[in-house]
Amino acid sequence: MFETLEVGKRLSDSDFSKLQKRLREELLLAQLDLAERDYPVIIVLAGLDGAGKGSLVQQLNEWLDPRWIETSTFWEHSDEEESRPFFWRFWRSLPPRSRMGVFLGSWYTRPAQAAVSGEMQADEFALYCKQIETFERLLTDDGALLIKLWLHISNDTQQSRLQDASPHRLTSLRGTDRPYEMLGKYNRTLEVSEQLILATDSSHSPWHLIEAEDGNYRDFTAGQLLLDAMQSRANRQSQVATPTAPSKKTRGEDQPTVLDSVDLSLKMDRKTYKKELEKYQGILRDLGWRAYRQQRSVVAVFEGWDAAGKGSAIRRVTRAIDPRLFRLLQFAAPTDEERAQHYLWRFWRKLQRDGRGTFYDRSWYGRVLVERVENLATTAEWQRAYSEINQFEQQLVNHGVILLKFWIHISKEEQEKRFLARQMTPHKQHKLTEEDWRNREKWHDYEIAVDQMVSHTSTRNAPWTLVSGNDKPHARVQILDTFCTTISQALDE
Amino acid sequence: MFETLEVGKRLSDSDFSKLQKRLREELLLAQLDLAERDYPVIIVLAGLDGAGKGSLVQQLNEWLDPRWIETSTFWEHSDEEESRPFFWRFWRSLPPRSRMGVFLGSWYTRPAQAAVSGEMQADEFALYCKQIETFERLLTDDGALLIKLWLHISNDTQQSRLQDASPHRLTSLRGTDRPYEMLGKYNRTLEVSEQLILATDSSHSPWHLIEAEDGNYRDFTAGQLLLDAMQSRANRQSQVATPTAPSKKTRGEDQPTVLDSVDLSLKMDRKTYKKELEKYQGILRDLGWRAYRQQRSVVAVFEGWDAAGKGSAIRRVTRAIDPRLFRLLQFAAPTDEERAQHYLWRFWRKLQRDGRGTFYDRSWYGRVLVERVENLATTAEWQRAYSEINQFEQQLVNHGVILLKFWIHISKEEQEKRFLARQMTPHKQHKLTEEDWRNREKWHDYEIAVDQMVSHTSTRNAPWTLVSGNDKPHARVQILDTFCTTISQALDE
Repeated sequence: MFETLEVGKRLSDSDFSKLQKRLREELLLAQLDLAERDYPVIIVLAGLDGAGKGSLVQQLNEWLDPRWIETSTFWEHSDEEESRPFFWRFWRSLPPRSRMGVFLGSWYTRPAQAAVSGEMQADEFALYCKQIETFERLLTDDGALLIKLWLHISNDTQQSRLQDASPHRLTSLRGTDRPYEMLGKYNRTLEVSEQLILATDSSHSPWHLIEAEDGNYRDFTAGQLLLDAMQSRANRQSQVATPTAPSKKTRGEDQPTVLDSVDLSLKMDRKTYKKELEKYQGILRDLGWRAYRQQRSVVAVFEGWDAAGKGSAIRRVTRAIDPRLFRLLQFAAPTDEERAQHYLWRFWRKLQRDGRGTFYDRSWYGRVLVERVENLATTAEWQRAYSEINQFEQQLVNHGVILLKFWIHISKEEQEKRFLARQMTPHKQHKLTEEDWRNREKWHDYEIAVDQMVSHTSTRNAPWTLVSGNDKPHARVQILDTFCTTISQALDE
Repeated sequence: MFETLEVGKRLSDSDFSKLQKRLREELLLAQLDLAERDYPVIIVLAGLDGAGKGSLVQQLNEWLDPRWIETSTFWEHSDEEESRPFFWRFWRSLPPRSRMGVFLGSWYTRPAQAAVSGEMQADEFALYCKQIETFERLLTDDGALLIKLWLHISNDTQQSRLQDASPHRLTSLRGTDRPYEMLGKYNRTLEVSEQLILATDSSHSPWHLIEAEDGNYRDFTAGQLLLDAMQSRANRQSQVATPTAPSKKTRGEDQPTVLDSVDLSLKMDRKTYKKELEKYQGILRDLGWRAYRQQRSVVAVFEGWDAAGKGSAIRRVTRAIDPRLFRLLQFAAPTDEERAQHYLWRFWRKLQRDGRGTFYDRSWYGRVLVERVENLATTAEWQRAYSEINQFEQQLVNHGVILLKFWIHISKEEQEKRFLARQMTPHKQHKLTEEDWRNREKWHDYEIAVDQMVSHTSTRNAPWTLVSGNDKPHARVQILDTFCTTISQALDE
């Protein structure tokens, strides 16, 4: 989930000052427009300590008309609050219709802190998450536009920011001791944050995760998200078509994605490859039977660019396993019968029994990849698919399934090379279609879709493996290695 | 919750055969229309054993064209099912778009049975409820029309039906032993059922509770609910106005409500009244201070017909309590500031601190009473208010609040008598307005609204007390008695 947030997204000062001019104007217009609307805008700012939530609030107050925006903090707990049900403090700070409210610290603060510190046990934490979801649904059912922003920084950045709280810093930390309590608890904080986000990420109030290493990028992205959300809500209500989107450049979207963090230079020589292949296939053969005896299923998902080598990588896996023990499934366009059901239905129906493997050559992730990019699914449909998929995979994991998910990544240049090679090779020409070339033109759209897919669905229980695929031998061995490690860790001795 | 389902709703055979003719025609039309729609209709039949779920399915299959309706049962668990995640068995039985499916036994069966038998603990049960809610939301998000019917019978009826399973019975019980396991567990079954219903009653898939003592009433009501749901879904999609509703008589709606179960003949003579009043007020005075010392709050809600005597009854309570310890709040039309917030906001903001009482002369129940009847809230708004209110009250109870809810009931004749008396009495004339007479015309609508309110919001943690109010002394003492009993049970020694 958070791996998409440490890829170095940033904006130079000059880009920022160019971009923010338009953004500010549009935000003010959106705020003006809101005064005529019958719903409030509620902004929840959450994320890691030291990520700059305070600075962002300052920036929002500069961009917007501060008379119509109210910021609520919940640092100190008054005894007035303690002597009433927990949510009372938030009810009394809700903005009325036509107004904006920023929650800096919110209903997320207490469960997150208490779970990290260990004061709150898993059961109580789950109950809080449920209450939060219910509360947010109540707000959005009533028309509220709820915008939830999560700011993320790396462990190193957090450490240096929290330690450097000298009064000379431009954006000084507020004068409480609490941030320091969080030092050294970075990993536990991420674990709790992931649970919190997964439990409360819904289509009516989705989370937006923002890389906050660079202040310019953080502020601009938050502002742009706010603007987009306000405009699209206003347009939906007034039934006016959405204005044509500004270009990527003026939206500051030309940013690295999680795919840029994959080292595509990795290579494996022929001799090592043969040796490794043999070694891992031997292990896997054995693991396949062990999993069967222990009645554990393996579900593996293969996704990746056209010509990334999915098919040949899958063959290296399947050759190692007794064919009675697995089924390989390919998913293209749905059949009529499948189209008459929920999109997850065709994946549910093909689930194998305990002890067998099911390998998916393309999968339920089509919903948030090709269906999203090609507009085959509506925005609401692919947005709610993230939590539907997470819940589906959670059910698999709870049932004892060992789940593997691979995205095989190659560079755009490598893809072109492979396409051209296919054109040259008579027996491979059939693998290349006009559509493949057309898909290439949407490379950037797919990059964003993959980035958001990983961000929403790479969880501790069901992580994505990003495979470095420019070198096929390397890619295959990486996949086999991941298979063997994951399965043997999951099985009993 | 279930008290509304033991009031003797029934249909004579001749009424039934008259009514079912029109119903059947319309159901067939609705089914024909569904074939052109792009969503499925999923009917969940649940409820107590012996309530006649099997007979109802048979009736539905008679009314409808059985070629386009598929019934799924989940009596036996195959090992095919056991070796896959729990919901797989339901996924594979889902009807495709344009078709109907009846689930006789469903995702509710297992958690209900396991919780009653004690095999499943509270935590696991809560998790199941959450999964059910998520699953149902996934279906309805995808467009499915989900209709959930709960059939209820009294303990006596269940016992006699389960014991009388001779082959001569027209609607014989299916040949499993399980129903007998449930014998003697009636109360525990109701407790679990209430939890299950509360956790899964939402505006997108609400529960419909049906009194199933009388087979004619049960079948006709279920069929009419199905028809209403299908028609209103179809109309919403095709943007055609809803046809004018048939009269109450042709809809079989002239049925007793929970209010008919209130014995209005109860009386108390003047002397007993004085004695009792004094006794309870003394106890209450003491309890007020004890609650304060133990920092427990009391929240009491007073609702009732116009002229039912709410005000004077409340005074009998408040006179007994130190005025520093409570606040009496009256709620009429919301202020501008309140209108700019969620309807629950004005009740949250007035919550007193721990140890104090808050008495509400009319309350958040206005949403499902006057706002419903007077069309001040949309159907979606008042329907989702039930679960919003339950969650609000649950938060109060979890915080330690002692919650009391009174509906003061009087007969329509008694109301008229009191209205006329007010007209005669100069210093009471101001209490009677034109509106009061207008409200009287909607007596039956209010009866239905009260019946459904009690059915949805009278829970073990927050039960309604229906006060027999034709005799004022009796009503006041009943209220004081309930106050004293409830508070003293909730406080420590």
